[in-house]
Amino acid sequence: MTETTFTKPIADHLERFNRSLARQMRSSVPLLNLVVRYLLRSRGKQLRPMLVFLSAGAAGGITERTYIGAAMVELLHTATLIHDDVVDQATMRRGLASINAVWKNKVAVLVGDFLLARGLLLAVEHREYDFLHATADAVRRMSEGELLQVQNFRKRRTDESMYLRIVGDKTASLIATCCRIGAISAGADDDTQALLGTFGENVGIAFQIRDDVLDYTSRTAILGKPTAHDIREGKITLPLLRAMASADPDEAKAIGQLVRSGPLRNGSVERIVAFVERHGGIESAMATAQQLVADAIALLEQLPHSEYRTMLAAFARYTIERNK
Amino acid sequence: MTETTFTKPIADHLERFNRSLARQMRSSVPLLNLVVRYLLRSRGKQLRPMLVFLSAGAAGGITERTYIGAAMVELLHTATLIHDDVVDQATMRRGLASINAVWKNKVAVLVGDFLLARGLLLAVEHREYDFLHATADAVRRMSEGELLQVQNFRKRRTDESMYLRIVGDKTASLIATCCRIGAISAGADDDTQALLGTFGENVGIAFQIRDDVLDYTSRTAILGKPTAHDIREGKITLPLLRAMASADPDEAKAIGQLVRSGPLRNGSVERIVAFVERHGGIESAMATAQQLVADAIALLEQLPHSEYRTMLAAFARYTIERNK
Repeated sequence: MTETTFTKPIADHLERFNRSLARQMRSSVPLLNLVVRYLLRSRGKQLRPMLVFLSAGAAGGITERTYIGAAMVELLHTATLIHDDVVDQATMRRGLASINAVWKNKVAVLVGDFLLARGLLLAVEHREYDFLHATADAVRRMSEGELLQVQNFRKRRTDESMYLRIVGDKTASLIATCCRIGAISAGADDDTQALLGTFGENVGIAFQIRDDVLDYTSRTAILGKPTAHDIREGKITLPLLRAMASADPDEAKAIGQLVRSGPLRNGSVERIVAFVERHGGIESAMATAQQLVADAIALLEQLPHSEYRTMLAAFARYTIERNK
Repeated sequence: MTETTFTKPIADHLERFNRSLARQMRSSVPLLNLVVRYLLRSRGKQLRPMLVFLSAGAAGGITERTYIGAAMVELLHTATLIHDDVVDQATMRRGLASINAVWKNKVAVLVGDFLLARGLLLAVEHREYDFLHATADAVRRMSEGELLQVQNFRKRRTDESMYLRIVGDKTASLIATCCRIGAISAGADDDTQALLGTFGENVGIAFQIRDDVLDYTSRTAILGKPTAHDIREGKITLPLLRAMASADPDEAKAIGQLVRSGPLRNGSVERIVAFVERHGGIESAMATAQQLVADAIALLEQLPHSEYRTMLAAFARYTIERNK
C-alpha cells in the first residue's frame, strides 16, 4: 500500500485543492511568488490535506468548507517546515535545496511568517471561526513542542512522558486538528469531531514513533551501517528509552552517560544501536505504536461505513507498516 | 514633550495591561518563560498599546475589549521585532542583547512564531473576530513589506512609490490597525473606525520618514560623523530620493551609481550625506511628514473633544518633532 492509494476516493478533490492552494499563496511581491512557486514544485505527500478530505468524507461529506480547512492546515504545515529548516540549519528538504539554503535565513523566516499568518487569516476571511478554535491549541502546541525539544536537547536528558509530550505537541496536534477540521467542515456533531480528533492524535503519535524506529532500523545503502541520525544529533527517542528501561540499571546508566557525552563517534553510535536492539527497544516501541493504531481504528467503527472510513483505517495501518 | 506625557490619561490602564500581558505570554515550557521574562524586562515604549487605549478613549471609551486588542497588537509587534533581529542578524535591541544573540536563531524563530500565533489566537479565544478582520490586512502587509525591502535591497534600486509602499506595509499598517482596533473596542461606528485607521496610517508613515531623516541628521557622539546606518547598509530612503529628484540628472546618476556600487567607505557615505543636505532632501522629506501629520490632526477634529483626542494629536506632532 502506498500513499497514493488513500487518495483514490478524493483524487479529484485534491487536484482542485492544489489549484486553489496556488491561488491562496499568491502575493503582490515578486520575490514571495518566486519562493511560493518553488514550494509548490517541491510539494510533499500532502498527508494533512488528505486527512482533512478523508475525515470530512467519513464524517458526512466533503463541502466547500473542506477546501478552506485543507488549505489552512497545509499553509500552517508548510510554514513550520520552512522555519524548522532554519532552526535545524537543514540544507535539503524533499530532495531539493531548502528555502534557507537557496534564499538565506532572512527570506525563509519572512516567508514562513507570511504563510503562518496566511493560514490563520484564510479562516478569518472565510469566517471559519470554528476552524480557528480547532487550530488554536495545535498552533500553540507546535511551537511549545519545538521549544521543549530544544530545551531537552541542550540537557540531553529526557524520559518517556517528556518524549510523548513532545511528539504529541510537535506532530500529533496538527494531525488531530486536520481530522477535526474535516469533521467540522462536514457539519458533523461535537462527538464526531472529538472522535476524529482522537483518531488523529493517536495516528500522529504512532506515525512519529514509526519514524523514530525507522531511524534505528534503517541502514545506509553503501556500507549497511545504521543511519541513526537522531542519536548522532543527541536526540533520545522511544526505542532507546524502552531499551534503557529494560536493561539492568548499571548498563542503562553507562549508555545514558555515553549519550550525554557530546558528539558521538561511529563506534559509540553502533554501540547504542546494538544496545537498543539487544534490549528489545524496537519491538517495545512498535508495540506502543500498534496499540495506538488499533485504538484509532476501533474508534472509526463508530462512524458509518464508507470508502473514506476505509481509507482512514488503511492510512492508520500504513503509518506503522511503512519502511520509509 | 516625551512619550510618557501621552500616557497620562491612560496610566492606570497601561499598568493593568502590563500585568495581564505577562499572564498572556506565559507558557508551560520553562525555556519559553525564560525568554518571555527577558522580553518583558526589556519592554520598549509600548507605543502600539498606547495608541489602542488612546483611540478607544477618543472613540467612545476604553472597555475590557480594549485590553484584548492592545495585547494582540503588542504580541504581534514583539513577534515581528524578534524575527526582524534574526533577519538583520542584529545583536542588540533596546540596549540589551537580542533574543537571537542570547539564545541563538533557533529559539528566536520559535519564540517569534509562538508570539505571532498567540497574538492572533488571543483574539480567537475571546471571540474578537472584528479584531482579526481589522488585523488580517496588516499582518499580510508586514511580511510582504519586509520581503519587498529584501528584494529591493538586493537590487539597490528603489523609487518614491516603492519607498512609500514599503513604509506603509512595514510600519504604518500595524499602527493604523492599533487605532482601528481601539475604535472597534469602544463600540465606535464604521466611519469612526475608518477615520482612526487613516489617522494611524498617516502618523505611521510620518513616524518612519522622521526615523529615516534622523538617520541623516544624527551625528556620532565622539567624532561627530554622520551615523547614516541606512545608506551604509544600502538602504535608500526618502531624503536621498528627494535630493536625487532635485539635483541635476548627471549628479543624481553619479550618486545612484555610487549607492549601488556595494559596501560604501566612509568617504562615500559622507559624500552622499552632503549631497542630500545640499539638495534639500531633509527639508523635502520633512515637509511630506509634516503634511501627513497635519492631515491626521485635521481628521481628529471630527471626533468629540477629549483628553484622549488631545493626546493623539500630541503624539502625531511628537512623531516628527522627536530627535531620537
